[in-house]
Amino acid sequence: MLNPENLPALQRAIADADLDGWLLFDFHGANPIAGGMLRLTGLVSRRVFAFVPREGAPVAITHAIEQGPWAHWPKSWKREVYASWRSLDEHLRTLVKGKRVAMEYSPRDDVPYLDRVPAGVLEMVRAAGAEVVSSGPLVSTFYAAWSAENVASHERASAIIAKIAEDGMRLAGQRARTPDPMTEYELMQWILARFKAAGVETDHGPNASVGANAANPHYEPTATDSKPIREGDVLLVDLWAHEPNGGLWADQTWMATVGPPSKRAQEVWEAVRDARDAAIALVTERRAAGKATLGAEVDDAARNVITQRGFGQYFTHRTGHSIDPRELHGSGPNMDNLETHEDRRLVDGVAFSIEPGIYVPGEIGVRSEVNVYLVPGKAVVTPSVIQREMFVV
Amino acid sequence: MLNPENLPALQRAIADADLDGWLLFDFHGANPIAGGMLRLTGLVSRRVFAFVPREGAPVAITHAIEQGPWAHWPKSWKREVYASWRSLDEHLRTLVKGKRVAMEYSPRDDVPYLDRVPAGVLEMVRAAGAEVVSSGPLVSTFYAAWSAENVASHERASAIIAKIAEDGMRLAGQRARTPDPMTEYELMQWILARFKAAGVETDHGPNASVGANAANPHYEPTATDSKPIREGDVLLVDLWAHEPNGGLWADQTWMATVGPPSKRAQEVWEAVRDARDAAIALVTERRAAGKATLGAEVDDAARNVITQRGFGQYFTHRTGHSIDPRELHGSGPNMDNLETHEDRRLVDGVAFSIEPGIYVPGEIGVRSEVNVYLVPGKAVVTPSVIQREMFVV
Repeated sequence: MLNPENLPALQRAIADADLDGWLLFDFHGANPIAGGMLRLTGLVSRRVFAFVPREGAPVAITHAIEQGPWAHWPKSWKREVYASWRSLDEHLRTLVKGKRVAMEYSPRDDVPYLDRVPAGVLEMVRAAGAEVVSSGPLVSTFYAAWSAENVASHERASAIIAKIAEDGMRLAGQRARTPDPMTEYELMQWILARFKAAGVETDHGPNASVGANAANPHYEPTATDSKPIREGDVLLVDLWAHEPNGGLWADQTWMATVGPPSKRAQEVWEAVRDARDAAIALVTERRAAGKATLGAEVDDAARNVITQRGFGQYFTHRTGHSIDPRELHGSGPNMDNLETHEDRRLVDGVAFSIEPGIYVPGEIGVRSEVNVYLVPGKAVVTPSVIQREMFVV
Repeated sequence: MLNPENLPALQRAIADADLDGWLLFDFHGANPIAGGMLRLTGLVSRRVFAFVPREGAPVAITHAIEQGPWAHWPKSWKREVYASWRSLDEHLRTLVKGKRVAMEYSPRDDVPYLDRVPAGVLEMVRAAGAEVVSSGPLVSTFYAAWSAENVASHERASAIIAKIAEDGMRLAGQRARTPDPMTEYELMQWILARFKAAGVETDHGPNASVGANAANPHYEPTATDSKPIREGDVLLVDLWAHEPNGGLWADQTWMATVGPPSKRAQEVWEAVRDARDAAIALVTERRAAGKATLGAEVDDAARNVITQRGFGQYFTHRTGHSIDPRELHGSGPNMDNLETHEDRRLVDGVAFSIEPGIYVPGEIGVRSEVNVYLVPGKAVVTPSVIQREMFVV
């Protein structure tokens, strides 16, 4: 959230991006980035703008009958009040005429997660005399970037869920040799109980699935519809959790086979693993060399490996998603040149998942997921030990 | 919701508007009109399009891993599947190249409620070779228009809440002469109890407020913060309710004075009443003459009266809002040339409130609200008897 403490850092980022300011717009919650920056409370049914100039105090344009939500807007910042569309236009012109401003706009919708300003609003801002560019770099640097505390919290959550995943899979393996094999749903419930005991929280899931079920990326076992985990099964566990009260998400996927893997399962696993490692290598090497990397390039690196192994058609999702200080699916760059064309750079502070997968319908689903956060000159992969081979349980 | 039964009517509306089709787009619920037309169920985290052509079967463009939400899409309609942005682009080009299509777009954000397509998406559709125009007329005719059953349900709710408002105000007048005057909050609770007894429902409110409290359009009394209603007070009651299971909203505001009105209160009331009636007269006369009316013109008609009486600066909101078959604040034309520039026509089937008000801060707030629905050649005002003078209670 924008406040007097973090304003100087944001204004430095605005200057670095060669902008005159960041123009936030929201209407009925359509722009979650503006919503997160402004954190207006209570009923906001009219259009709002807030302009963060390169220098000087931010200015909000607020509706006459909706002043309550702005109660926390600092007294030393400006608050313009409009009731009519004519005065809204005038305030806007005064603020942005002749300026180069960033908004949540992504040309040709290359990045839908960043493309939050309605077409008519962009016309209105342009008609007020502004040049509008994408706020992508500001969002990455200022809104999506992790602090040192964020990193520490993520590292703790990451270690906790890695242990739980492995323990759960080994337990499922033991139970597979008894007359009472664990079901996918039981494993899911077991993981949730362990989350609770470890003091971490999740929103839904986790996902535990075997064989063909794992080939459906949105499969989730239920109490009434869930397969037992048996000898010969390939088992996928995807789990995500965070510490309470604003802790950062950790998000991992692990693979196991009950008994030794088939040749086919091993071949699929190796393609996934090598794709994951190609993506990690690209990020790591580029950072070490001080070179920029786009999210789309990381996706290409992973996808090329899987395509070369002949499984390209079965890797049906992006390679990874942003994880920001608030959201598991965050506002920073995604590792994606499949679903969207991610043209944002991986700048210091951003974090994301790397999670290639191969899903052969009706047969097998394999994914390996780790997280990466970027600190100056370095890309840090979590958990600290990543899976080289599927667990044989 | 779009279905094979109402498709022919929609396709007639598309032809009447000289369009090749209606292109619906949604992403994370940013476009509530597309959401209401498509009613996708379950997780929809990727971009979706649906094209309703002037003739022939509708075509959906759906994401490979999100087929579940389209389970109810008719088998005889087409469903294209994309996984990559490249194939999304191709499907779009195939569908709309060289065509004139409507989207939820409002040039210069004249109508924010209709301006739901992100700027980058509009560029993407234009790059696919389409000419994009506003879907405003289609939304009014097809999505916002009332059926005969809607009208009947609204009429019943309207009669019920009119009676409750008057009864409540008269009771508050009686209690004002006892040692135990009713508070605003008690009156609100009394109205809610009467709603329940009458079998109608509301979402929040109603609003009961006296004197200066009524000058705050968003004031709502609470159990701990509520004024007693006393001799000499000007009392405003705004209440809205509908029958259960899809009944249409009725939304009314009534005024009373406890004891005879002051000269000032009477003067304010007459300005509000005459503004309301000027708006009604414009709609009625234009329809009788078979001429088009824009929402902005109805606002001008009411606002001119209040401005001429010297209260223009105290009429701080639009004259009225759309009421559609789903929402109290609906998707059709609003009576507004203040907050927004409503350039949509009042076509057969749409309905709206007319509710001018004067709010002198710290002193007095007066509003009068009725509803209007349009049937061919006629504008019908509800309730059947509207307030000529404030109740003296």
